[in-house]
Amino acid sequence: MTLVCYHCGNETETGARCACGEPLWLKTDASEFSWPTVARSKAGLWRYGDLLPTEPLPGVGLTAGGTPLIRTERVDDYAGCRLWVKDESANPTGTFKDRGSAVGVARALETTEDEGDWVGTVSHGNMAMSMSAMSASAGVNCLVLVPDDIPAERLGHITQYDPKLVQVGGEYGKLYYDSLELPDVRFVNSDTPYRVAGQKTTALEICEAFATAHGDPAGSPFAGFEAESSDSVSTSESVESRDSTDSPTAPDAIVAPVSSGGHASAIWKALRELREANLLDSVPRLYFVQASACDPIAQAFRADADEVRPVQGEETVAYSIANSDPPSGNRVLAAVRDIGGAVLSVSDDEILDAKQQFARRAGLCVEPASATTLAGIRQLSKSGEISPDDYVVAIATGTGFREQGAMPTAPQSIPLADLAERVRSLVSGVQRANM
Amino acid sequence: MTLVCYHCGNETETGARCACGEPLWLKTDASEFSWPTVARSKAGLWRYGDLLPTEPLPGVGLTAGGTPLIRTERVDDYAGCRLWVKDESANPTGTFKDRGSAVGVARALETTEDEGDWVGTVSHGNMAMSMSAMSASAGVNCLVLVPDDIPAERLGHITQYDPKLVQVGGEYGKLYYDSLELPDVRFVNSDTPYRVAGQKTTALEICEAFATAHGDPAGSPFAGFEAESSDSVSTSESVESRDSTDSPTAPDAIVAPVSSGGHASAIWKALRELREANLLDSVPRLYFVQASACDPIAQAFRADADEVRPVQGEETVAYSIANSDPPSGNRVLAAVRDIGGAVLSVSDDEILDAKQQFARRAGLCVEPASATTLAGIRQLSKSGEISPDDYVVAIATGTGFREQGAMPTAPQSIPLADLAERVRSLVSGVQRANM
Repeated sequence: MTLVCYHCGNETETGARCACGEPLWLKTDASEFSWPTVARSKAGLWRYGDLLPTEPLPGVGLTAGGTPLIRTERVDDYAGCRLWVKDESANPTGTFKDRGSAVGVARALETTEDEGDWVGTVSHGNMAMSMSAMSASAGVNCLVLVPDDIPAERLGHITQYDPKLVQVGGEYGKLYYDSLELPDVRFVNSDTPYRVAGQKTTALEICEAFATAHGDPAGSPFAGFEAESSDSVSTSESVESRDSTDSPTAPDAIVAPVSSGGHASAIWKALRELREANLLDSVPRLYFVQASACDPIAQAFRADADEVRPVQGEETVAYSIANSDPPSGNRVLAAVRDIGGAVLSVSDDEILDAKQQFARRAGLCVEPASATTLAGIRQLSKSGEISPDDYVVAIATGTGFREQGAMPTAPQSIPLADLAERVRSLVSGVQRANM
Repeated sequence: MTLVCYHCGNETETGARCACGEPLWLKTDASEFSWPTVARSKAGLWRYGDLLPTEPLPGVGLTAGGTPLIRTERVDDYAGCRLWVKDESANPTGTFKDRGSAVGVARALETTEDEGDWVGTVSHGNMAMSMSAMSASAGVNCLVLVPDDIPAERLGHITQYDPKLVQVGGEYGKLYYDSLELPDVRFVNSDTPYRVAGQKTTALEICEAFATAHGDPAGSPFAGFEAESSDSVSTSESVESRDSTDSPTAPDAIVAPVSSGGHASAIWKALRELREANLLDSVPRLYFVQASACDPIAQAFRADADEVRPVQGEETVAYSIANSDPPSGNRVLAAVRDIGGAVLSVSDDEILDAKQQFARRAGLCVEPASATTLAGIRQLSKSGEISPDDYVVAIATGTGFREQGAMPTAPQSIPLADLAERVRSLVSGVQRANM
């Protein structure tokens, strides 16, 4: 590639700096360029307008959803299948919660005259951050009920958006039900109808990507060059040369963490609606994963029960999904029985190992709760319930960026003079103990 | 809206729980639904293939770019203009760096046979995280050179992707130049050609959104429903009812933080290329913002100099852009002189205030370096250089999620029994001291 200097006009084929001292950049001929014809759609979740109960929410609400679906081939060995990841960290506050919050806050904006403009949530984590941000952006009042023992750093991540925060002592678990009774404030809790309506769009997007990408689901090497509309076929060479066995029109399974059961219910609702609309060639199995330290729904599933009983939850690294009395627990069981699949538990060790693999093999930094998906898939592969040819979508529900970075062993510092030699050793494959 | 119980089929107009105890969801008629015709394009930055020097990078590389452009009306008062925000936090590692890293790593993947498969970077922050993640996802070796005094938490955010990390003592600033000389490793530093090629796509996206959205730039209430291609007009009612004065075909100004000058140079390159391609109705002015504690480029601009001199930088909250000897400093001056605009400095207080306003008025959590944009815009509005009618795009270069959450004053805890009364007071507007 030819490089050119902005300053003196000199051209060269190598290097990053010009002889004149200034930086080089690539020589680009833009004379024939025109805007690409592949449309940009930034509809996010609002593209499913016909299935949503509100108009789009302005501000950051417009940018919720429409998240990447990534083919993560380097994780296949570890997962035991053909793995795709739905990366919910791309949402405005870094988790899938934004889908539900956007619809909940949009509802409040639309019905302000009748019902006032207060929304609320019972959450000490991602949902609180999400509701606060969506509300701030839309100019809606937001009430956040948090427990006594919320860690101070998490408080900061919520209060930066300036919601009205009330810390409630005593039975925080009871709050989910009590809050729904409070007048004047629309609580958009974990599994309430408007939240579920927004959160079903995760699965809608997954299914649409597989169904409409003419055998080239988003995430393949030419994901960006999808057909311009659902009834025209892309004619690029790259599409024709694709291996057609790598392009199913539906995933074999969708895997998500489960806590309250809100997102899981929403996934079910999406599949039900797509079934009703006759848009699914086949229905993906559903696997919902819990941390074994707090797994009431998985326990009920294993016991073949129809109802979930509350448990005495223990601490887990997957703190976001440690709900010991999930308000939609029974609905999750119903979902899995209708669609097929399972609810399973994974240990903290399995979770942390999977989290590490997500980073090392796929470049994805996910919060521990999200890593339950990969840990669960690995378990299911080992038991044979997922097979190596299966196309499995793991929903990476939230970013790991807010986690305190792990404190690694500090590498030994070397003087600049020794750098060239150290690099030579590295590249030639010699492992030095201090690294 | 009608609600229905999945379990007993009961329908109702209010409430979130059914009398049977199970949660309700919205009743949705999906029988007529079909996939929307507005195309989904997940091309990210790769949609500008004709202007890029590599093929798309598989894995998370595919998801770099294509970030939201948000109309943030509630910030207009504070900013003193009609403000748009380009939200780079939506990138895979949460910053615009991913655009450059994706192209740099793609280059390495394509030329492995000739040049080996090592990439490298000199960075203790966002660039290191970005290169490590992109490399991990693509199976390319990555060498990261960090300084002695890198904070331990930041180290963790980098090492999770398992790059080869070397901590170098002594003159870290010298490393930028020395690293480019190391054989066997392709250093994709701050302003090197392939990084700049990727990073120019931020400005390409901004300009395309304004130019092609037929008067409805992404971010308006119907942003998602853009025309299917650049030469057809959307016929939806919502488009026709828009106020045409709120729909320019180019922004009046683009504002970005500046450190090494790499991103700023890339923005310039984008505008040059669009000018060459005759795709700009008008060319946006460029304002680049620095922290006054370390502002060599701004100083040179104020002195009307052609060259930037290194400074003795002080500490600043905007640590990501504290480059005291920017390798593309002169190129930034050239950009501003060519295009029009300025390089300016803002204080830490102005930065932190702007960061708070981003959160409270727009629901955006940005890192301090990114908040320099809003602080700079406010300054320029006060001086009259930006006018209230101007459409200004602030590039929010990176997420604030990795920042330690601010430790707020702990709100006083109240017992559950007092909750209803507290909420009533809140909603009726009575401010309690303890909240």
